[in-house]
Amino acid sequence: MHPDRIREIIKQVKAGKMSVDQAMQALRNLPFEDMGFAVVDHHRQLRSGFPEVIYCEGKSVEQVCAIARRILEQGSDLLATRAGEEMYRSLKSEFPKAVFHKEARIISVKSGKGGLKMRGSIAVVCAGTSDIPVAEEAAVTAEVLGSKVLRNYDVGVAGLHRLLARGQDLLSATVIIVVAGMEGALASVVGGLVDCPVIGVPTSVGYGASFNGLAALLAMLNSCASRVTVVNIDNGFGAGYAASVINRAR
Amino acid sequence: MHPDRIREIIKQVKAGKMSVDQAMQALRNLPFEDMGFAVVDHHRQLRSGFPEVIYCEGKSVEQVCAIARRILEQGSDLLATRAGEEMYRSLKSEFPKAVFHKEARIISVKSGKGGLKMRGSIAVVCAGTSDIPVAEEAAVTAEVLGSKVLRNYDVGVAGLHRLLARGQDLLSATVIIVVAGMEGALASVVGGLVDCPVIGVPTSVGYGASFNGLAALLAMLNSCASRVTVVNIDNGFGAGYAASVINRAR
Amino acid sequence: MHPDRIREIIKQVKAGKMSVDQAMQALRNLPFEDMGFAVVDHHRQLRSGFPEVIYCEGKSVEQVCAIARRILEQGSDLLATRAGEEMYRSLKSEFPKAVFHKEARIISVKSGKGGLKMRGSIAVVCAGTSDIPVAEEAAVTAEVLGSKVLRNYDVGVAGLHRLLARGQDLLSATVIIVVAGMEGALASVVGGLVDCPVIGVPTSVGYGASFNGLAALLAMLNSCASRVTVVNIDNGFGAGYAASVINRAR
Amino acid sequence: MHPDRIREIIKQVKAGKMSVDQAMQALRNLPFEDMGFAVVDHHRQLRSGFPEVIYCEGKSVEQVCAIARRILEQGSDLLATRAGEEMYRSLKSEFPKAVFHKEARIISVKSGKGGLKMRGSIAVVCAGTSDIPVAEEAAVTAEVLGSKVLRNYDVGVAGLHRLLARGQDLLSATVIIVVAGMEGALASVVGGLVDCPVIGVPTSVGYGASFNGLAALLAMLNSCASRVTVVNIDNGFGAGYAASVINRAR
Amino acid sequence: MHPDRIREIIKQVKAGKMSVDQAMQALRNLPFEDMGFAVVDHHRQLRSGFPEVIYCEGKSVEQVCAIARRILEQGSDLLATRAGEEMYRSLKSEFPKAVFHKEARIISVKSGKGGLKMRGSIAVVCAGTSDIPVAEEAAVTAEVLGSKVLRNYDVGVAGLHRLLARGQDLLSATVIIVVAGMEGALASVVGGLVDCPVIGVPTSVGYGASFNGLAALLAMLNSCASRVTVVNIDNGFGAGYAASVINRAR
Amino acid sequence: MHPDRIREIIKQVKAGKMSVDQAMQALRNLPFEDMGFAVVDHHRQLRSGFPEVIYCEGKSVEQVCAIARRILEQGSDLLATRAGEEMYRSLKSEFPKAVFHKEARIISVKSGKGGLKMRGSIAVVCAGTSDIPVAEEAAVTAEVLGSKVLRNYDVGVAGLHRLLARGQDLLSATVIIVVAGMEGALASVVGGLVDCPVIGVPTSVGYGASFNGLAALLAMLNSCASRVTVVNIDNGFGAGYAASVINRAR
Amino acid sequence: MHPDRIREIIKQVKAGKMSVDQAMQALRNLPFEDMGFAVVDHHRQLRSGFPEVIYCEGKSVEQVCAIARRILEQGSDLLATRAGEEMYRSLKSEFPKAVFHKEARIISVKSGKGGLKMRGSIAVVCAGTSDIPVAEEAAVTAEVLGSKVLRNYDVGVAGLHRLLARGQDLLSATVIIVVAGMEGALASVVGGLVDCPVIGVPTSVGYGASFNGLAALLAMLNSCASRVTVVNIDNGFGAGYAASVINRAR
Amino acid sequence: MHPDRIREIIKQVKAGKMSVDQAMQALRNLPFEDMGFAVVDHHRQLRSGFPEVIYCEGKSVEQVCAIARRILEQGSDLLATRAGEEMYRSLKSEFPKAVFHKEARIISVKSGKGGLKMRGSIAVVCAGTSDIPVAEEAAVTAEVLGSKVLRNYDVGVAGLHRLLARGQDLLSATVIIVVAGMEGALASVVGGLVDCPVIGVPTSVGYGASFNGLAALLAMLNSCASRVTVVNIDNGFGAGYAASVINRAR
Repeated sequence: MHPDRIREIIKQVKAGKMSVDQAMQALRNLPFEDMGFAVVDHHRQLRSGFPEVIYCEGKSVEQVCAIARRILEQGSDLLATRAGEEMYRSLKSEFPKAVFHKEARIISVKSGKGGLKMRGSIAVVCAGTSDIPVAEEAAVTAEVLGSKVLRNYDVGVAGLHRLLARGQDLLSATVIIVVAGMEGALASVVGGLVDCPVIGVPTSVGYGASFNGLAALLAMLNSCASRVTVVNIDNGFGAGYAASVINRAR
Repeated sequence: MHPDRIREIIKQVKAGKMSVDQAMQALRNLPFEDMGFAVVDHHRQLRSGFPEVIYCEGKSVEQVCAIARRILEQGSDLLATRAGEEMYRSLKSEFPKAVFHKEARIISVKSGKGGLKMRGSIAVVCAGTSDIPVAEEAAVTAEVLGSKVLRNYDVGVAGLHRLLARGQDLLSATVIIVVAGMEGALASVVGGLVDCPVIGVPTSVGYGASFNGLAALLAMLNSCASRVTVVNIDNGFGAGYAASVINRAR
Repeated sequence: MHPDRIREIIKQVKAGKMSVDQAMQALRNLPFEDMGFAVVDHHRQLRSGFPEVIYCEGKSVEQVCAIARRILEQGSDLLATRAGEEMYRSLKSEFPKAVFHKEARIISVKSGKGGLKMRGSIAVVCAGTSDIPVAEEAAVTAEVLGSKVLRNYDVGVAGLHRLLARGQDLLSATVIIVVAGMEGALASVVGGLVDCPVIGVPTSVGYGASFNGLAALLAMLNSCASRVTVVNIDNGFGAGYAASVINRAR
Repeated sequence: MHPDRIREIIKQVKAGKMSVDQAMQALRNLPFEDMGFAVVDHHRQLRSGFPEVIYCEGKSVEQVCAIARRILEQGSDLLATRAGEEMYRSLKSEFPKAVFHKEARIISVKSGKGGLKMRGSIAVVCAGTSDIPVAEEAAVTAEVLGSKVLRNYDVGVAGLHRLLARGQDLLSATVIIVVAGMEGALASVVGGLVDCPVIGVPTSVGYGASFNGLAALLAMLNSCASRVTVVNIDNGFGAGYAASVINRAR
Repeated sequence: MHPDRIREIIKQVKAGKMSVDQAMQALRNLPFEDMGFAVVDHHRQLRSGFPEVIYCEGKSVEQVCAIARRILEQGSDLLATRAGEEMYRSLKSEFPKAVFHKEARIISVKSGKGGLKMRGSIAVVCAGTSDIPVAEEAAVTAEVLGSKVLRNYDVGVAGLHRLLARGQDLLSATVIIVVAGMEGALASVVGGLVDCPVIGVPTSVGYGASFNGLAALLAMLNSCASRVTVVNIDNGFGAGYAASVINRAR
Repeated sequence: MHPDRIREIIKQVKAGKMSVDQAMQALRNLPFEDMGFAVVDHHRQLRSGFPEVIYCEGKSVEQVCAIARRILEQGSDLLATRAGEEMYRSLKSEFPKAVFHKEARIISVKSGKGGLKMRGSIAVVCAGTSDIPVAEEAAVTAEVLGSKVLRNYDVGVAGLHRLLARGQDLLSATVIIVVAGMEGALASVVGGLVDCPVIGVPTSVGYGASFNGLAALLAMLNSCASRVTVVNIDNGFGAGYAASVINRAR
Repeated sequence: MHPDRIREIIKQVKAGKMSVDQAMQALRNLPFEDMGFAVVDHHRQLRSGFPEVIYCEGKSVEQVCAIARRILEQGSDLLATRAGEEMYRSLKSEFPKAVFHKEARIISVKSGKGGLKMRGSIAVVCAGTSDIPVAEEAAVTAEVLGSKVLRNYDVGVAGLHRLLARGQDLLSATVIIVVAGMEGALASVVGGLVDCPVIGVPTSVGYGASFNGLAALLAMLNSCASRVTVVNIDNGFGAGYAASVINRAR
Repeated sequence: MHPDRIREIIKQVKAGKMSVDQAMQALRNLPFEDMGFAVVDHHRQLRSGFPEVIYCEGKSVEQVCAIARRILEQGSDLLATRAGEEMYRSLKSEFPKAVFHKEARIISVKSGKGGLKMRGSIAVVCAGTSDIPVAEEAAVTAEVLGSKVLRNYDVGVAGLHRLLARGQDLLSATVIIVVAGMEGALASVVGGLVDCPVIGVPTSVGYGASFNGLAALLAMLNSCASRVTVVNIDNGFGAGYAASVINRAR
């Protein structure tokens, strides 16, 4: 379209139907985004592999369905996070391919087209059973985006032997996502054992001086293991997404 | 004196030199502390073993010397924390027995009397070399108060094997003091490996989102290892003192 | 098992059924924890006396029951904290020995085997009636873990004479747990009266600038009584556990 | 003057030298404060007893001297807080009556006129020797404003008997100022012992989780003793001033 | 009793039935509070005028009724704060004199005995209609404790003329309580207009960066009007109580 | 009235019906606000164009109706913010001209009189669909106060081309309101593209380390685009009001 | 240039020297900013009136001089903020037109070309003498950007009559900048008196619970006067700049 | 060695020189780390490519030299961060290959052995000139660890066209490091333009409500661009290290 419109202007100049000044004026008034080849190309490239994402929290079922319809009509895959049962039932009735990942609170709709090529697998590690919903959000996100995921749950630092037993998984992963609340120490401990990128996800699991995840967040940001980078509290999706970006073959 | 004064009153009643009402009046007007047998006894008992402590920060050399003189004249041992070279030289010139523990910034003066009986040894563990001054404050405090101390420095969680190699020391201690800045994860990891009390000392080592030790403090308060209790940021003295209290035989 | 497995490998080498290289390979691949004698021994030792603990908050009745079943089948005692009536009824129907400590929100199941040997009693002191649930969590934890507990409730610093009247209990305890919200001053006052370890538990009791227990937490961390160490806000269980560890005879 | 000016306008109207409209216009344009009888009266009343105050921090010696000159020329007393030696020497050379209260960092210049009538004495209590500068700022302020001051220093809650020994002073005071850093518990303890107003002054004395006085501030704001009100951290002057206002006979 | 017990001991010494050493031993073991004449006297003195107070939040109807019964049986007046309708109905059925101050959420029960003598009236000023519940808590507290109260509501600083119109009330009061949320500026403005003590009560009224009253709290603590002291956020009761203490004639 | 009353006094002086002293006394006693010409004029001027505003949160339907009645009886327009359906139905039944702006949660009642003259249009830009309620509060406020509003929603910085496409609207506006939660970056980006005043409204949209809008608030306060000023979190009304004040022709 | 380059491409197409596809390719590869007519135009427009700004803090004298040289060579005016004496001397030696506004810490270099047309004057109001440097930064910025500035310093809310006396200035201004530290109440008070836009600048003046300006910042963000918008703590420049943008005639 | 020691034990068993029980005992007593094949292997593997790192802050020149000597003797490369001139001169005199990257405050010593294989280049983008030291720390770290680095400095969001002009570099990178202080918006804007991993480094550049980098940190953690992960404030080294780990070919 926009490239076409530019081409049309140039053609009209060539055909003598438009003066140079008129062409300049027309080009000058084109909205910025019409010139945004790189951006558009890049978006197209992304869409060919990664699904579009809807963050459902604070949106009504109707709003989510409307956005989903628009995305799916374009042939894109869909990933809806922070979704509930009711949202799933509504989407399912319209899009039979919709799948509900209950613990991860994610609804995915895959078009069936092949995904992007990945470099290896992503390990998702979490400290306690209460961290599992966030860990699952990360794991399912990574799976829907095309990666193989290795789950290693309930391996908190207070029972170090449980973690050390997972060495195989940890050492074989291309990226590791560490999900932990309370004191968030797991990210540093894992970061000291492996040689791949580690993404820390602090969770709001805890009480009192955990200040809804602040303790774990600060701990991970201050990790003495330099390979650890951090996402927002409870942001399993973000970790799964960033890990997938790292895991993509280029 | 005070007990003597009460005894004197009672004696005078017995001797008929004072009426019951006069005795009641005299007793009623005694300041509270004069009645404070338990407190006084308890203080005396403490002093018989534990030295008196001066926190030097914000005090002039003259002030510290004056307080030290008063304490030492009573035959008590002395422990002066957060002390510098100059303070040491002044004390040393007056009290030749004064010893300067430079890295711990502690001056101690021991009377030579035997100390309290202790149950076992205290292990002091720290994460990085920058944590050593605080660790030394804890270690020297514990030593001056009468405990044997096992130092295990530079065993941060990013190199877990270094910590695991100290298992012997950790498992043999009666109390363990864990000193760590940055993410403070070491307290939880140690707490998960041992079966004795663990006292966490967060340090202000770090930068940015360590917020001068807040990150380590919150991490330790949220430790998933239930045996961990915590003292103030950089409070090596407090940890050494509390550990000594735990280590005392009763 | 694991020691047996290592022994098996060595025996096979001895018997010539396995080459040195094969043995090296086998040993190399053993998961870390299989080598973890100390850890395993220590865990066994702990389990012989202290019950296993389930933190119920955020877990479903089904999840708690499943974990409880696994623990109790191993002959271990059980302590379930932050538990409600419904959870109790479910556990009770399956494990008739289950006891509900309502105010402490704790369910305990004792196997009847003798516990660990303790050094003395634990005093639990709290400032106001609103602090009692947290104090009870500490007290019941300590009792289930085997200590005699001396309860001294509603002795806040604004009525100092009430506290001073409990001198006997306080001076006789091996460890004292001080539970206080609002300004948390009680920990310092008690810490100044006694000569045993004091564990402060700040509570979220208060409003406005108590910031859900932050005021009490900071107060206790800054206590001028050096024998005070601190656990997380409302962490009665942690205090009861740490006090029990201190109170254990070794 | 201003009332005179209004009277002049009215007189001119009466004398027929000014029309009603001209008078309305003149009155309408009078700056607000010219109408502010109450405010002006009240200010005059205040000045007749309470000296004017200069907060010196961040002001140059020249600026302070200039302001001091303006105040003293009006016959008012002067109180300059947060002042240093150099500032004193400059003021002294110009105003020989200037007195330097070194520890309080206050310079006062009294005109010699009688002060306001006070109801009783003000007790100033502080927890540690490091709190003395702030306590002195409060005490000297109260003295310069006309109250008798009873100093009770170094009576922290960790040695309760020292505080209880001061009962006489505390019970006889009309207002008590409690100055304390670290955990700030002293305000609550004193507030529970007496029946007069108590003003708490948190100080920045402490380190780590005292967060420059935040711990003491929060503690005092959450005091369980309802008679305690609070001023800013290190604001000895404010406490001395507010106590003087309470102590004034009306 | 306790004085009697001491008298008994002295009598026995006098009668020769007890040796001096035995008397010393007996006295030595008396609990502290038994000697606490001053404290007890002071408490009695307080109770003769000021009612006892129950903070109802977090207490059950049964608990409140039980405490109320104990207090009222001693002939004391009663003030129950943060109380609801249901609590009132229960108390009313047992104590017909109970009065419910709905907006202040206070239940009072007066014995009919004369109260303490007061010096003057207390003005309660608030900024917005949403601050009225806290203002009423302060006002009713002051009234029940015996002061005349002058209410001046909805006089926020954004409409300064409304405040200035209340000058009469403000200038005549012995103490002024300023209740304000949001930016809390009213305390400073009032503090600059009057010459009596001002107690600021920050409220949690506001949203966003009011951080539940923190903005108003900090503003009041930093007031440029030196006569302002501050109580906890939403602590209308505390302000009313402290103002009454200031207003008491001595 | 008030000016009339002053005029009356002056006239009576002129007419000899009142002495100068009586006039002085009468003037002296006029409440402050009666002298407040500027204030009153200014209020009248404001009311002639800008409607009165009721903040409904925390007020009962009855309270809001009563205030609305008083305002509307004076012929003023009305703007009720943070209003719900029920409030609307009550107002509508009494004032048929009431209009409910549902998404903005605003009820407006216009008298039909012409509004103030405005300089140009106000653009309202928001980052995500969850920010729309706050954006609508700003937009409807600006519209009711008389400005033309250009809405540009869902143009967050993660899809910069969407924002750049709105260049026309942004460059033509007299004031721009930028509404954004999460990282709040949109204010800086818009501020760097335009040359008119930009008002940033941080929203509480987000989770975890957004800390209810704190992240967006801090980001906007630190904007590198100097033309950005900021209002409270979620304060769409304040932004709409301030923008209207800027947009007013003078 | 860039427009010229586009024109060149179009001309070559017209002249038949370039095919449509070649032209498309050439246009497609132009960097974004080359297409940025609006941006460029807008920047040029800005530069024609407003000087370029250098924030000197953290830059060396050499760096500032180099940037200044580049700006001044383009014929633009210059405004260097947070500048010291030494920086001034260096600039002065190279650019004799440089002027140093010492209290504002601003260096300005004006080209002598006429500035932008302004709508009216800007009033700068500040609370205390310590706020003057920030107020001057705002005032000088506004003056250098072309506005007439009305300074009203030292009119804090504790002496309300001083502020009210400045009514004339305040009511005549097009924009008012209110600079205040401590409790920052002045912004609300001024905002309630006037009918033009008010920009609040919290300052770091204060101590203790002012938390380096946080108290004033929160107060201003929560202002009950809806016309108040806020800039960063101590950001006098930002306020002066934003006020100038509002004051510009369009 | 350790594997050799195990091999030795097994050999001796095979040779009949050691009984199975003796072998079991020997293995049981091996320190944990001796068993740590994976860890050791992994460390060796790391060391073969990545240099060892010394964080110099808080270490003396002597300490750094001693550690450096130990590292370099093992043939490893060296990276010393937060280093000053004096430290460089000392290292240089002993290790002539030492290179000082002044702006990055990094000293590197390369052994000359080939480094690890990398996947592509790392782009380092920063917002302002004051962010350059942190950006350089990231860039030099990445270079010393073996990556090609593309520097794009001073491209803050307030001049979006400057950023968009760097599209080529950004789109070609394998990882992008975004360094920004103040509002930290750059991370989100870059994250929305590219399709590779983005690591955000908040800096402490700013003042007032930047709270030493907190504003930028929170902004980046709340980024609406899901590919953004974050490291500690001013942690250029950590970003360079993590980016290198992502960029490593595996």
